[in-house]
Amino acid sequence: MGRTIEIYDTTLRDGTQAENFNISVDDKIRITQALDRLGIDFIEGGWPGANPVSAEYFQKIQGMSLKHAKVAAFGSTRHFRNTADKDPNLLSLLDARTPVITIFGKSWDVHVRDALHIGLEDNLLIIEDSLAFLRPKVEHLFYDAEHFFDGFKDNPDYALATIGKAIDGGAETIILCDTNGGTLPHELPPIIDRVKQYLEGCSRKVRLGIHSHNDSESAVANSLLAVSLGIDQIQGTINGFGERCGNANLTSIIPAIVFKMGLACEVRKHIDRLYTTSRLVNELANLPNNRYQPYVGESAFAHKGGIHVSAVRRNPLTYEHIEPDKVGNIRRILISDQAGNANVLHKAKKWGLKLSASDPLLATITSELKELENQGYQYEAAEASFELLMRRVLGLQRNYFKFESFRVIIHKVDMERAPITEATIRLYVGGDEVHTASMGDGPVNALDCAMRKALTRFYPCLEEMVLTDYKVRVLTGEHGTEAKVRVLIESRDHVCSWSTVGVSVNILEASWQALVDSINYKLMKEDNRK
Amino acid sequence: MGRTIEIYDTTLRDGTQAENFNISVDDKIRITQALDRLGIDFIEGGWPGANPVSAEYFQKIQGMSLKHAKVAAFGSTRHFRNTADKDPNLLSLLDARTPVITIFGKSWDVHVRDALHIGLEDNLLIIEDSLAFLRPKVEHLFYDAEHFFDGFKDNPDYALATIGKAIDGGAETIILCDTNGGTLPHELPPIIDRVKQYLEGCSRKVRLGIHSHNDSESAVANSLLAVSLGIDQIQGTINGFGERCGNANLTSIIPAIVFKMGLACEVRKHIDRLYTTSRLVNELANLPNNRYQPYVGESAFAHKGGIHVSAVRRNPLTYEHIEPDKVGNIRRILISDQAGNANVLHKAKKWGLKLSASDPLLATITSELKELENQGYQYEAAEASFELLMRRVLGLQRNYFKFESFRVIIHKVDMERAPITEATIRLYVGGDEVHTASMGDGPVNALDCAMRKALTRFYPCLEEMVLTDYKVRVLTGEHGTEAKVRVLIESRDHVCSWSTVGVSVNILEASWQALVDSINYKLMKEDNRK
Repeated sequence: MGRTIEIYDTTLRDGTQAENFNISVDDKIRITQALDRLGIDFIEGGWPGANPVSAEYFQKIQGMSLKHAKVAAFGSTRHFRNTADKDPNLLSLLDARTPVITIFGKSWDVHVRDALHIGLEDNLLIIEDSLAFLRPKVEHLFYDAEHFFDGFKDNPDYALATIGKAIDGGAETIILCDTNGGTLPHELPPIIDRVKQYLEGCSRKVRLGIHSHNDSESAVANSLLAVSLGIDQIQGTINGFGERCGNANLTSIIPAIVFKMGLACEVRKHIDRLYTTSRLVNELANLPNNRYQPYVGESAFAHKGGIHVSAVRRNPLTYEHIEPDKVGNIRRILISDQAGNANVLHKAKKWGLKLSASDPLLATITSELKELENQGYQYEAAEASFELLMRRVLGLQRNYFKFESFRVIIHKVDMERAPITEATIRLYVGGDEVHTASMGDGPVNALDCAMRKALTRFYPCLEEMVLTDYKVRVLTGEHGTEAKVRVLIESRDHVCSWSTVGVSVNILEASWQALVDSINYKLMKEDNRK
Repeated sequence: MGRTIEIYDTTLRDGTQAENFNISVDDKIRITQALDRLGIDFIEGGWPGANPVSAEYFQKIQGMSLKHAKVAAFGSTRHFRNTADKDPNLLSLLDARTPVITIFGKSWDVHVRDALHIGLEDNLLIIEDSLAFLRPKVEHLFYDAEHFFDGFKDNPDYALATIGKAIDGGAETIILCDTNGGTLPHELPPIIDRVKQYLEGCSRKVRLGIHSHNDSESAVANSLLAVSLGIDQIQGTINGFGERCGNANLTSIIPAIVFKMGLACEVRKHIDRLYTTSRLVNELANLPNNRYQPYVGESAFAHKGGIHVSAVRRNPLTYEHIEPDKVGNIRRILISDQAGNANVLHKAKKWGLKLSASDPLLATITSELKELENQGYQYEAAEASFELLMRRVLGLQRNYFKFESFRVIIHKVDMERAPITEATIRLYVGGDEVHTASMGDGPVNALDCAMRKALTRFYPCLEEMVLTDYKVRVLTGEHGTEAKVRVLIESRDHVCSWSTVGVSVNILEASWQALVDSINYKLMKEDNRK
């Protein structure tokens, strides 16, 4: 096993700079926990000085214990006008009370003049000064040399001098940043060699890191090259989200250093979580998965007919650079049901349902699954609906109620105020007709409330059940509001949580399907507990 | 100007191997013409031996004259059982009547055994033999050394021997293929050096090319590294489409060799067509544009962070690696809670609204913007709503109608069938009361139809307007169906397209807000045209 590489994730800071990437504080917490489970060493949570959401995040995270990861707060060197101990940005970093603080400073003389409007010497002063102020107050202190590569190409001596000052100030790791993402791989080796020479003459030993952006579609390659040149820390984001074209993509970097370069890192132990972590981030950011994404994409190990398929069957290495399950992904042989059948059998076993490979019902389930997926249903994120589907085909699913009708009325009478929403529902439980009505914040909420009113009398356990998440995705934008929508609902009781799905051109119909599945799943769980 | 690089596009062959990438013969012709206008040197049209669509393509293309590009037909070495002059695959290549033929053969001993099931010597024989047969019958003859890098790592002497036979057979260019995409950048230099040594001992001088796949997210970087190591031809696809994770992306490679490496190529003359060519391929393949794509993506030159925005307006190079218009793209300044007055002033200027930095209304707009964004409104994806907001504050926005009320009824009476949806709306235009009703696929669609019925009589231009996209995002999943939703609507007329936003706990209210903005924007545009 080679030397140990530190993985520094900035999905929650630089990643949120990506266009259309907006997540709540609670989602940031969920991602933090997932990154910790994955074995990420450092998690950059945000810039407390720059926006309130970050400050709230750091307050919430302080109370929580993580298995391995250390949370980092990010900020700039002090403003030239302030002394360090009076600089609001530096003080907000200390308020975040994180084990790690990462400070960025200017390495490029053009930026010192055109962005900071101060002298080159002044910039050197605030770098050393800001770090020296923080050094005794924090466990780990990192320095991001912003625009280092552009700065070096422009004025190498000055770029190196800024690093020197960061070291004098007490930085323990110096991260070389390709902030504009313009650096090409062949430019890296001479620059990094020169930096290593320079470091030998410095006051203290430090570790080196790299922070790349993908504007030249070389962020992953540059990061891996840097590692092969002896760099110890890689900064990147899950799925490569970030400003403009994004940051270095950790879901491609980590498998390369683990499986191909044989280097050590904490993630090595949990790398089969890479796929689910990648999906979680997309899901919470409500951005589609990139099917062509290396290692974790749906197509990454998909083989179309002909030569490839037969060769892969005989020897997967003929057309795959690694085995998909190493990163939690699966091989897909397109134009063949075998993947489908295997998947169904796997789930049946998992859920304790009797189903053998020779059972004719297997084909029924697989083809029904295919048909529904063609209609837009997606069961990866809604396993409860999939289990109900299997139980229905296998004749194991009870009907807990008989639907008669529902009506939802949304009435708006004031331009300034939200509409009034009322739902009524009629159904039968056993012999009894139930007819209930309810108001709601919106049509789905009103329908949900009316349903519960109707059923809780007969099935009190439904009171334990709450909806914890509701997601809507428009499947084809082609026909505007006539497009199909897929609704994913996540529900929870005191024991566990489950997800269900519905699809329709009518968003209320799609929501209704997911609601009904969610209630049926809860009631089925209760029956099986008895 | 440095040496000349040949650009070889395989979008129409390897690109069509991408999952979900399906195009008609006519679309292949259109792409061929677009690639020719862009200045691509070689266009690989397909594998005539392997599928009928390709054969039809080659028939059609024979009649057409291209400005610069030469079309290539792709195929494998002959089958071991056949003599070259009787091999159907080789004969179908000649039938294609292209100026270029590209033959691929096996470099990796594992493949010779596990895929071809022949001896290593037999493979050497069919490589030389197939090329020797074709050499006198075609203008340009290229050889793709499939799996070259994996083969070299496994058995370097054999991999090199296969190249030697291709040269003996008459290949004028040898393309080193990383077919599985598993090769990392630091592995490239020693391998390519060894190949160059080997070539010095060969019977004839040949050119070298590279064909990379993106399974390690290094295809672009590996191609550029290869060029820096002296390779003369790059094979890739537009937008990086291809088997599994795709091929080397030419829309990232070409700008790098032109603007950063200073090398010559025909595309240099027409590189400002890169953006439109990229869009055309996505459109014909009916796949969405990747907004984060380097150089040609919508976000590639979009600036969000407040600091970035002010710096970029002073000196674009501070946060851009090249000028967007060089590749036909544009700079975009995003509205977001991190942006301040700078963004607002920039937009006002862009939209021709009188607003100076000293105007007290500037603060009003900025604070209203912040307030709305805290409520969940997001204007970076809904600029039309933002322009209306500014015009309202500046007193420039007319009220085209006065809202009275609407009612939407969703009635479901059959578990198996979608509900019936009806919307009614009451409003005033000038003095006239209008009261209309409409059915719809869903509540939003019904409301949209009723609105149009009501207004088109007074504003016929609304007939030109169509909704092209509808997006829903749940802002905080924590409270289940009570969570706020943000609706983004994209509309289009024959002139342009625009996006609007609405936010509410009630999805219909949010949709209504976005619909009303969309209609007001269209009417405002018409007024300003007069």
